Amino acid sequence: MLATFAATFAATFASTSQMRHTTIVDIAKKLKISPSTVSRALANHPDVSDATKEKIRKTAKAMFYLPNPIAKSLKSNRTSTIGVIVPEIEHYFFSSAISGIEEVASKSHYTIIVCQSNENYEREVENAQLMIGHRVDGVIVSISMTTRNADHFREFSKRRIPLVFFDRVCDDVEASKVIIDDYQSAYDAVSFLIGRGRKRIAHFGGSPDVGIYERRLQGYRDAVRKYGLPAIENLMTSGDQYEAHGFNAADALLQNGAMPDAIFAVNDSVAIGALQRIKTAGLKIPEDVAIIGFSNEKTTRFIDPPLTTVDQPSLEMGRKAAEILIEAIEKRSSEVKTVFIPTQLVVRGST
Amino acid sequence: MLATFAATFAATFASTSQMRHTTIVDIAKKLKISPSTVSRALANHPDVSDATKEKIRKTAKAMFYLPNPIAKSLKSNRTSTIGVIVPEIEHYFFSSAISGIEEVASKSHYTIIVCQSNENYEREVENAQLMIGHRVDGVIVSISMTTRNADHFREFSKRRIPLVFFDRVCDDVEASKVIIDDYQSAYDAVSFLIGRGRKRIAHFGGSPDVGIYERRLQGYRDAVRKYGLPAIENLMTSGDQYEAHGFNAADALLQNGAMPDAIFAVNDSVAIGALQRIKTAGLKIPEDVAIIGFSNEKTTRFIDPPLTTVDQPSLEMGRKAAEILIEAIEKRSSEVKTVFIPTQLVVRGST
Repeated sequence: MLATFAATFAATFASTSQMRHTTIVDIAKKLKISPSTVSRALANHPDVSDATKEKIRKTAKAMFYLPNPIAKSLKSNRTSTIGVIVPEIEHYFFSSAISGIEEVASKSHYTIIVCQSNENYEREVENAQLMIGHRVDGVIVSISMTTRNADHFREFSKRRIPLVFFDRVCDDVEASKVIIDDYQSAYDAVSFLIGRGRKRIAHFGGSPDVGIYERRLQGYRDAVRKYGLPAIENLMTSGDQYEAHGFNAADALLQNGAMPDAIFAVNDSVAIGALQRIKTAGLKIPEDVAIIGFSNEKTTRFIDPPLTTVDQPSLEMGRKAAEILIEAIEKRSSEVKTVFIPTQLVVRGST
Repeated sequence: MLATFAATFAATFASTSQMRHTTIVDIAKKLKISPSTVSRALANHPDVSDATKEKIRKTAKAMFYLPNPIAKSLKSNRTSTIGVIVPEIEHYFFSSAISGIEEVASKSHYTIIVCQSNENYEREVENAQLMIGHRVDGVIVSISMTTRNADHFREFSKRRIPLVFFDRVCDDVEASKVIIDDYQSAYDAVSFLIGRGRKRIAHFGGSPDVGIYERRLQGYRDAVRKYGLPAIENLMTSGDQYEAHGFNAADALLQNGAMPDAIFAVNDSVAIGALQRIKTAGLKIPEDVAIIGFSNEKTTRFIDPPLTTVDQPSLEMGRKAAEILIEAIEKRSSEVKTVFIPTQLVVRGST
């Protein structure tokens, strides 16, 4: 059976090459030499003279010859592709991380295959199957907000395909991780508000089922507890309406006459939604209510007042994830690393 | 030579499969039936009973079996991948377009390979070679600002690889295009300013070497000329400092005491840079100077005042480009289409 299979390969292959791509045979015809000389010259074989090699390389380049990646991948057992699965390509944090991944990958001659899960678990499982099907050499993932089962990620390690998570990670999968210290970043942001004399600090949080949001919540709780302040929490459990969450949570506090003097929001969109609602109520930011976001999205610089926020270096996280992954691929290493990328609080007009 | 080649394929292949992936042989062993029965069942061959097929499919799924895409691609002469080359993944317009491409592609079971040119011609040529090397079934491109030679795109048509440009297109390459009417959009935006009584309207433009910027400039010129107004132009020739361009151009007009009563900027970043400089000079927007941007980036809603801008539907442009490309791939059609996606002026506080 294998033999027939192989014969089919070879036949289809030859016809493909002739139709679309410059082949070794084309170069040989052009130079009126044998295909095997061309082949050996391009493989830098010692029995071909330097002069001939030079001539063949020039002609190959001029004819836009490219070695066949499928043949190469079958020989080397590599495809030189890296799979990337993110919740949403369009989201600034992720597009910027992808940009960092692509930058590092292309320097090492890898291409990236990008899929988005749309925050949907089933879609993420399909993405993972597709990456396996495409024989990627490694995968970089930031998980969807609705993912509770990690079996599809374990399939990578079963197949010895290196996996690196960034930002939103799966704690119960043994894989490298590039993360920020969400707990400490939140703790520091809230401590900053306390240092500025704020006494009633609310947290507009994400779903506590999502690891990074749970850690931000915990950082907030520990900071207010340390100073004996009340915890005022409004947690969202669905991930699709960030600004609306901030807007509605602020609205509820206004309706109840319970507006605090500061808000630490789980991300910038929630902070911006809150800011908009509070401004329309005639309250002053930061005099009446100070607001801190999380991520340092581009938008935050331009709103009025500009938003104080935790800078989450997305480009740097993408670069680091790609570096770790490529090292694991090339050293065939199964060492698991956790890298923390430092954050910093960017203080602007909203506090 | 081909036979040896094929044999090498088959051998490497078998070892690859055993190491990393569930094979037909694994399924056969598990069910204690012959590999050829498994193979025929999975190919839906009529000589296998429905009951056996069902049992085999269930087991294959449980064992996370996936047909080998390299073998499949050699048989079908397809890789089911679409190449995407954009100037910058991180830029909102492009990340949103990529998201639209991915959405349509994944519905038709294509994956996307993404590269960025970083507005660099040499990098774009490398990207194109890489796409050809990866045997993509088709390519979607938005060209770099520094590209003046289109030979690398002509390589696609030589290889009968369908190509669709979006937004920034190459006019002298015969390929499908998904674009907006830059001329008309600019003409309409400037006419809107004239309709609101503005008499001295400046254009902060892009490099006239870039097609879309040249057309926006022309739309501006024709609109002011029609009403006998003066043309006040400040064109940038480098593409890497959008906000700085708007900031500096506004600054120059302020220094010369020549501030107009309206500015039509070539994109949102330039508009925002101008807006920031004008605000710090103590002038009022829109009372003293009205400003219109171009693209409707996310940021524009949040700045103070919110920016009037031409909405350029990036997601829709990405979707349409993918639809046209997939149709061309699947119908093996070389028909060339030009699709205009309608824009609209989003009127906000800055006018």
